[in-house]
Amino acid sequence: MADEALFQFLHHEVIQYVNAAENGETENGRCITKLESMGFRVGQGLIERFTKDTPRFKDELDVMKFICKDFWTSVFKKQIDNLRTNHQGIYVLQDNKFRLLTQLSAGKQYLEHAPKYLAFTCGLVRGGLSNLGVKSVVTAEVSAMPACKFQVMIQKM
Amino acid sequence: MADEALFQFLHHEVIQYVNAAENGETENGRCITKLESMGFRVGQGLIERFTKDTPRFKDELDVMKFICKDFWTSVFKKQIDNLRTNHQGIYVLQDNKFRLLTQLSAGKQYLEHAPKYLAFTCGLVRGGLSNLGVKSVVTAEVSAMPACKFQVMIQKM
Repeated sequence: MADEALFQFLHHEVIQYVNAAENGETENGRCITKLESMGFRVGQGLIERFTKDTPRFKDELDVMKFICKDFWTSVFKKQIDNLRTNHQGIYVLQDNKFRLLTQLSAGKQYLEHAPKYLAFTCGLVRGGLSNLGVKSVVTAEVSAMPACKFQVMIQKM
Repeated sequence: MADEALFQFLHHEVIQYVNAAENGETENGRCITKLESMGFRVGQGLIERFTKDTPRFKDELDVMKFICKDFWTSVFKKQIDNLRTNHQGIYVLQDNKFRLLTQLSAGKQYLEHAPKYLAFTCGLVRGGLSNLGVKSVVTAEVSAMPACKFQVMIQKM
């Protein structure tokens, strides 16, 4: 509980700060990029810790399952609720109650702020996958808070 | 373990980012101030969670003991090793193995970077105390990493 609050509060502060620091130049885009790249590096670090004693993954799907279960549970205290794939390199991870959105009002009022609250996590997933040898592009979308979907597009090398 | 790593990695990223964002204007001072004020707001939030079911504190010393034990353990997974006071509003909290410094080399090489790694925590303590009705100024000093001392000067109102 305590740790979770610490992460949530710090995450919130980071968003506020990055938003203020990047303002003036261009608007949202730069802020999102910065948050995403912070997430990327944190994801890289975390996945190394988490997989230290894990056996080698069988394939890409096995890696994705690890992200949805172990990785997500460690960071957000719950699993991804639904994982779907087209078996051609696109995965959709759905979280029906995403932790970093639960602090925001569930109405449509703050929907425009949602991308800022998802950027770090997109980076987190991309960084984690990257250090498992899976290059990807990760985007997020919200239709009704606090549910959201992360789309992972694997980049074939 | 996982949470702790998450916080440590994010904390590290924040320092890097704030440092880069504030550079050019003035150097270290502004960076430290920003980190401290982020810590302040996080500390305010955390202490409200942590003291939700705690009985009212007897006095100032009682508050400081809570910070050294419960608060420190929640955030840094260990207690403060030594608490000293002159009974006139100055408290010195010594941590012999401060978590946010353990990632840095223990030599003197990176001693100059230590203040950046302590500023957030100074704010954390100040914010926590503030929401318990104790106004203070908190500074930190390191002589031999990873040990450090936080000095809390209570501001009588």
